[in-house]
Amino acid sequence: MKNIGSADNPEIKRLVSLHQPKGRQEHRCFIAEGWRTITTLLAGNMTIAGIYVTEDLVPQAQETFKKRELTIVSLALMRKISQATTPSGVLAVFYMRPNPAADAMGAGLVLANISDPGNMGTLIRTAVAMNIDTVVIVEGTDPWSHKVVQATAGTIAQVKLYQTSWYQLLRTKGARKLYALIPAGGKNIEKTKCNDGLLVIGNEAHGLPDEWADQCEERVTIPMSGKAESLNAAIAGSIAAYVAFGRKA
Amino acid sequence: MKNIGSADNPEIKRLVSLHQPKGRQEHRCFIAEGWRTITTLLAGNMTIAGIYVTEDLVPQAQETFKKRELTIVSLALMRKISQATTPSGVLAVFYMRPNPAADAMGAGLVLANISDPGNMGTLIRTAVAMNIDTVVIVEGTDPWSHKVVQATAGTIAQVKLYQTSWYQLLRTKGARKLYALIPAGGKNIEKTKCNDGLLVIGNEAHGLPDEWADQCEERVTIPMSGKAESLNAAIAGSIAAYVAFGRKA
Repeated sequence: MKNIGSADNPEIKRLVSLHQPKGRQEHRCFIAEGWRTITTLLAGNMTIAGIYVTEDLVPQAQETFKKRELTIVSLALMRKISQATTPSGVLAVFYMRPNPAADAMGAGLVLANISDPGNMGTLIRTAVAMNIDTVVIVEGTDPWSHKVVQATAGTIAQVKLYQTSWYQLLRTKGARKLYALIPAGGKNIEKTKCNDGLLVIGNEAHGLPDEWADQCEERVTIPMSGKAESLNAAIAGSIAAYVAFGRKA
Repeated sequence: MKNIGSADNPEIKRLVSLHQPKGRQEHRCFIAEGWRTITTLLAGNMTIAGIYVTEDLVPQAQETFKKRELTIVSLALMRKISQATTPSGVLAVFYMRPNPAADAMGAGLVLANISDPGNMGTLIRTAVAMNIDTVVIVEGTDPWSHKVVQATAGTIAQVKLYQTSWYQLLRTKGARKLYALIPAGGKNIEKTKCNDGLLVIGNEAHGLPDEWADQCEERVTIPMSGKAESLNAAIAGSIAAYVAFGRKA
């Protein structure tokens, strides 16, 4: 058990650098906070680099994390390294996973230019709940940022996560079909068998660029009684994921 | 067109008081921000009390709001009255609607003790997209708070919104059935005709209290291939709303 008391400690500086995309890229690490998120990441076989707890939580941390090494930090330092509004007092650093091999890409979701971290995290969490194997991140927000990781509740470890560009995806997807989810005018998703392909969910405000939608094999739409344009992106994507992949036969 | 330059102006003080539940209750008013949210509220026939814009946006505001009176405020005052992280420069005050008559309660959703404003707002927005008539708020967060109103994207005006207690709901619901949405073990919602009743969605972290679930006529569950426990509350509620109410025949 280590104990860090000073904000000048290089380890603390490195942790704070992980708050920014540049620091995460440099160290290939990201931060996760709270018991549930951390234990879910561990259950997903993410490789852990360190666990930081405040003194009062040491017994609980020893119980939860068994023989893993803990680093004790003061409450003031925890506030410094945490990105939560109210730090839970337990924080861990994990190594990012590299992109899996392109030929291992399964059926699943493409999050195309999703900019809100809460939406991205929620969609990843939904993918896991729907037994979806693959999530492809095309541009948009950083999936390893604090808000995304927390919104996945740690389930980010449980999908094959690709980060790529749209054009790279077109090259690597092979025979797998792309299904563009659009608010209106596409084929009824209830009547389209798309669970062997990749369902493409576009940006919250702007949807999918026309050019990208044109490059998909099919356009699909959720058949709804009300007004389709007033669904939040994470909701639309999740309902589509449920219909296409998640519903039990 | 009025012009307010001073933070000591009583109107500014009243606007700031609307940031808190107490101020909203006292004045029976709430704040909405941004063009889309405000115009959607107006389209939903909410009664407006005032529109506040920064000087640079006056032409756009005159174009958008036609003959309605505008109040010009400085950028500094806009930052003071706004609750947005990045104020859009246009803000409006609307009168809250009172509860509609209990005997007008239609089929719809019950949001039981939802504590996250984003989840509550998203669920209301989903309800509107699914053509759901009635949303009953039982405890939980204030539906007229900034974050809820913004997360509805202004659609909060388009449902009959009731605020009540659980026991009051049991008394006033009449013959209408309550369907408790639970993560596992309920009747398959795909095979349950519940669109004549009220679908009850519980708290994000704690779900529905057992006692409340017992008092519902039926328990329903979303049939899923993956792990049900890892869905976000707004996602679970939205998928259930889609299955029960929203899907076009």
